[in-house]
Amino acid sequence: MSGSSFGDILLDAIERKRSHVAVGLDPELSLLPPELRSAHGLAEDHDDHAVVACYEEFLTGILETLVDEAAVVKLQIAYFEALGVAGYALYERMVRAANEMGYVVIGDVKRGDIGSTAEAYAKAHLDGTAVHAVTLNPYFGSDGLEPFFRRVREDGKGVFILVKTSNPSSAELQDQVLGSGKTVFEHVADAVNAWGEGTEGARGYRGVGAVVGGTHPEQGAALRLRMPGVPLLVPGYGAQGAKAEDIGRLFDRDGTGAVVNSARAILYAYRTREGDWRDAARQEAAQMREALWRAAGRA
Amino acid sequence: MSGSSFGDILLDAIERKRSHVAVGLDPELSLLPPELRSAHGLAEDHDDHAVVACYEEFLTGILETLVDEAAVVKLQIAYFEALGVAGYALYERMVRAANEMGYVVIGDVKRGDIGSTAEAYAKAHLDGTAVHAVTLNPYFGSDGLEPFFRRVREDGKGVFILVKTSNPSSAELQDQVLGSGKTVFEHVADAVNAWGEGTEGARGYRGVGAVVGGTHPEQGAALRLRMPGVPLLVPGYGAQGAKAEDIGRLFDRDGTGAVVNSARAILYAYRTREGDWRDAARQEAAQMREALWRAAGRA
Repeated sequence: MSGSSFGDILLDAIERKRSHVAVGLDPELSLLPPELRSAHGLAEDHDDHAVVACYEEFLTGILETLVDEAAVVKLQIAYFEALGVAGYALYERMVRAANEMGYVVIGDVKRGDIGSTAEAYAKAHLDGTAVHAVTLNPYFGSDGLEPFFRRVREDGKGVFILVKTSNPSSAELQDQVLGSGKTVFEHVADAVNAWGEGTEGARGYRGVGAVVGGTHPEQGAALRLRMPGVPLLVPGYGAQGAKAEDIGRLFDRDGTGAVVNSARAILYAYRTREGDWRDAARQEAAQMREALWRAAGRA
Repeated sequence: MSGSSFGDILLDAIERKRSHVAVGLDPELSLLPPELRSAHGLAEDHDDHAVVACYEEFLTGILETLVDEAAVVKLQIAYFEALGVAGYALYERMVRAANEMGYVVIGDVKRGDIGSTAEAYAKAHLDGTAVHAVTLNPYFGSDGLEPFFRRVREDGKGVFILVKTSNPSSAELQDQVLGSGKTVFEHVADAVNAWGEGTEGARGYRGVGAVVGGTHPEQGAALRLRMPGVPLLVPGYGAQGAKAEDIGRLFDRDGTGAVVNSARAILYAYRTREGDWRDAARQEAAQMREALWRAAGRA
């Protein structure tokens, strides 16, 4: 199934769209365009169904308007779980919609558990879904990841394992230095290298990727070199503070191999830009796309 | 709100039931009693709704039959997510049912993410729910846990943070030795100590607990001493191999402070015991309850 290896799917999408942009769907009611909230009667009191309807119109509009700017859609499932059962159903609908529009779809679920439970999570989040890849937490070690690796090898699915995250307190555990001289995150990076062996597609990239925050440019550049052939999912752009110049070194020498996520700065661009919220989001994503393309040495 | 601190809620339940047993709800279709599967028409083809109905009858029966044996119900959300939207709705119904029957309810969700996302997860899994406590992953560090800690301090909710897990490959990351001489899991244990300060209830136990696998008895005993006042959730009993003797040292000198989870060995006890599946589950749980009560020096 070489044509359907996740590494190829991701790199093909980057080339086709000429974009490293992953738009993060992190819907939050208080940040949605006021005219949309009003249209759904969400001024004061409201029920979850009205919120779901409002989210669906907003997120569908975002997907439609970004189709030439973003290669990847990353759905942060927490914001859907926060709406309960109706939110979970919306998550599934938005996954399908994003896939049908030609995006590579990442389910940002960050699951991690013992083997039997991981099998249930893999069934839940990959089997029979339109999700191309999910994010995973490495704390349990390999037996808790193996059910996902099997879907990488057999079904062409992808995973992105947390290596170095973008948040301020990521250092508390991840930057601890082991007796070997390696940090915890370098130890995990080496494990990610070992776990992904043999999952390369035709373009040389694997189905087992890594999450590397864009907010730590030096560490990120070193991790790019440490994990050749490992696709990177880079959060932290925009609202979290990472800039395109910082992120340039997270691409490989061909200017590919990484996608960069931005959620709030794109979704809620109407707050700082003129015009309709769709136009504002598209302008923000286009500017990000161009800045990253340059930073990758492609333009 | 001293009367509703999670440490008190948990220790009160242990005393009231004279039980350290947490029953894990990990429903798996292939393991369910054959007569129940037949009754729901689940012989060959089936749809998710029939599976949900079968799970609901089974899990409700388990909750009813264990009410004098188990103090805690731990719902493993992965098995519910594997059924999609209908499974998620079942999770919510089973949480309410367990709470109404007087169990302490732990949502075994093992979430972990950056701060803004953690806020959404905390809203999803604690706010307005009948869940008393959730399990969390420490890889992101404190800013990804703080939204949950706020609910510990303000709402009397509880958390159990992964320290040393029960699975075979837990050593790959957790047993790595830092330059300080501490293992990664000891480093996390010390962080759990710091994070929980000031959340003690009247019985001296905190709202910030730890997951410590029962399959590593020496490490578990040392962790008990290292984290005084930290409630422990101990997986690994039964199907995963930990025995009551191994677990005795995870209790404090008053024979409390820890609850021990067993899922498959209780739920599917009908496979090795005589009689109805309810009776088999109750007998298995009663035996476990007595063995733990003795191991805790209480009988």
